[in-house]
Amino acid sequence: MNRIGFVGLGAMGLPMAINLVKKQFRVRGFDMRAEAMAALEAEGGTRAAHAADAARDAEALVLMVVNAAQAESVLFDAGALDAMAPGGSVVLMATCSPAAVEAVARRVEATGRSLVDAPVSGGVVGASGGTLTIMVGAEPAAFERSKAVLGALGDKVFHVGPKPGQGAAVKTVNQLLCGVHIAVAAEGLAFAEKAGIDPAIALKILGGSAASSWMLNNRGPRMLEDEPAVMSAVDIFVKDLGIVLDAGKAMKTAMPLAAAALQMFVSASAQGLGGQDDSQVVETYRSLAGLE
Amino acid sequence: MNRIGFVGLGAMGLPMAINLVKKQFRVRGFDMRAEAMAALEAEGGTRAAHAADAARDAEALVLMVVNAAQAESVLFDAGALDAMAPGGSVVLMATCSPAAVEAVARRVEATGRSLVDAPVSGGVVGASGGTLTIMVGAEPAAFERSKAVLGALGDKVFHVGPKPGQGAAVKTVNQLLCGVHIAVAAEGLAFAEKAGIDPAIALKILGGSAASSWMLNNRGPRMLEDEPAVMSAVDIFVKDLGIVLDAGKAMKTAMPLAAAALQMFVSASAQGLGGQDDSQVVETYRSLAGLE
Repeated sequence: MNRIGFVGLGAMGLPMAINLVKKQFRVRGFDMRAEAMAALEAEGGTRAAHAADAARDAEALVLMVVNAAQAESVLFDAGALDAMAPGGSVVLMATCSPAAVEAVARRVEATGRSLVDAPVSGGVVGASGGTLTIMVGAEPAAFERSKAVLGALGDKVFHVGPKPGQGAAVKTVNQLLCGVHIAVAAEGLAFAEKAGIDPAIALKILGGSAASSWMLNNRGPRMLEDEPAVMSAVDIFVKDLGIVLDAGKAMKTAMPLAAAALQMFVSASAQGLGGQDDSQVVETYRSLAGLE
Repeated sequence: MNRIGFVGLGAMGLPMAINLVKKQFRVRGFDMRAEAMAALEAEGGTRAAHAADAARDAEALVLMVVNAAQAESVLFDAGALDAMAPGGSVVLMATCSPAAVEAVARRVEATGRSLVDAPVSGGVVGASGGTLTIMVGAEPAAFERSKAVLGALGDKVFHVGPKPGQGAAVKTVNQLLCGVHIAVAAEGLAFAEKAGIDPAIALKILGGSAASSWMLNNRGPRMLEDEPAVMSAVDIFVKDLGIVLDAGKAMKTAMPLAAAALQMFVSASAQGLGGQDDSQVVETYRSLAGLE
């Protein structure tokens, strides 16, 4: 596998595509933004005229688009799937619901190609450093064929099951935990503030105790800032916890904490904070507690 | 402050009282169980005939009882408060609601003595090693007087505010985060199981990602065992998340995640698992998902 098509050169996708170039893959990339393609070209990749052009004769087509609808549009409407080499693999790395991945897999497999369901965690830092965590749901043979590509993008590649959709399921759990951990950190810090405790002291105590989470220590300090830099927006969790609950419904698994946490992000978005850093869900709790 | 009364020589209290003895405090201890008092005596402490006897002429009376009701019973019904030295300090280290601590403080202060609200985290390991985290709500002068005693019990002593009840408020947040983190770990692992993912692989991936929490890594492995050792029981979180919600109500702070998580522990208790390890809240989620 050497000829790679890559669609979606955003904050995550561009450094991922560049990592493939650096590992000697021949990468032809497409993105709606010309400057993203120029950046790829400057690093030794090739610019495509459209999505199907990026996919032309590709042995692997990596999709790092926003969601499942975009992936379907690229594959089926824009003709990228039919442009690929016979027997190639679609490597779907966007965050999608397990059911959406299964539906895409059926259509890809009907053409004799494979779907490698491979969502990631690790953010822009992991994408740039080639240190992403990648959760793969794929037939063992398809997983084996894609290993070199995935290994160029992440250093923690887990084959979690033989079915496309199972990678998305683990990513779903990842987003469930991340979203609830952010919301409960906000619930706790708003309570501390109402009790007249300096939230910075509460954070210092809790961040070093059995009450700690990665998100408490990462988002907690930004909850104490008035206008923190936007690392990831409130509306991303409105979307991702929506995927979690859709997946739970499709799979018939009740998810009461996901449901409660989603309402907090929805409310933050309703307050006009959808584009702000997700730590600002604390403002929903402050409103609920009558603070300010 | 050298003469210490100590009431409540349980799994936490006994090693704490022994740590005080080792630091050259004169400790007179009381517990309903004679063998606990014998263990203290063997380490150089003194056995009391009853709670008021433990408190007799004490400059500090440490209470490591089960809850606020027991603390009130010891202080006011059993006569321990009146037996103390004039101007002494009651050091209340049990997990109580902030409102209960405030009520106890008023009655203690009416006798000219001080209440040092000083709940702990760190479990039996921290109690034995003198490495507890201690969250102190107390007037600055009372805090200063109790520093030597608290420093013998914990190595992370934080003065979080000038009012008794504020230590309990931080402990409340601690229990909120711990309880929700356990419940959401169970919510995630049950979902993974339903999706046909090996929960051990899911745990390995999530425990090293932004989705991790101290509780995920501590309780998660026990969620995969059929009958894990009981480190802390389901019913402890029924109690502690109840305190969290009572505190939220008293302080007028809405706590939707605490409310949802409590229901999961209540349900686990309803299934007959109240005395089992709190990781077994995963059985509630497995039932909700129709597993087994």
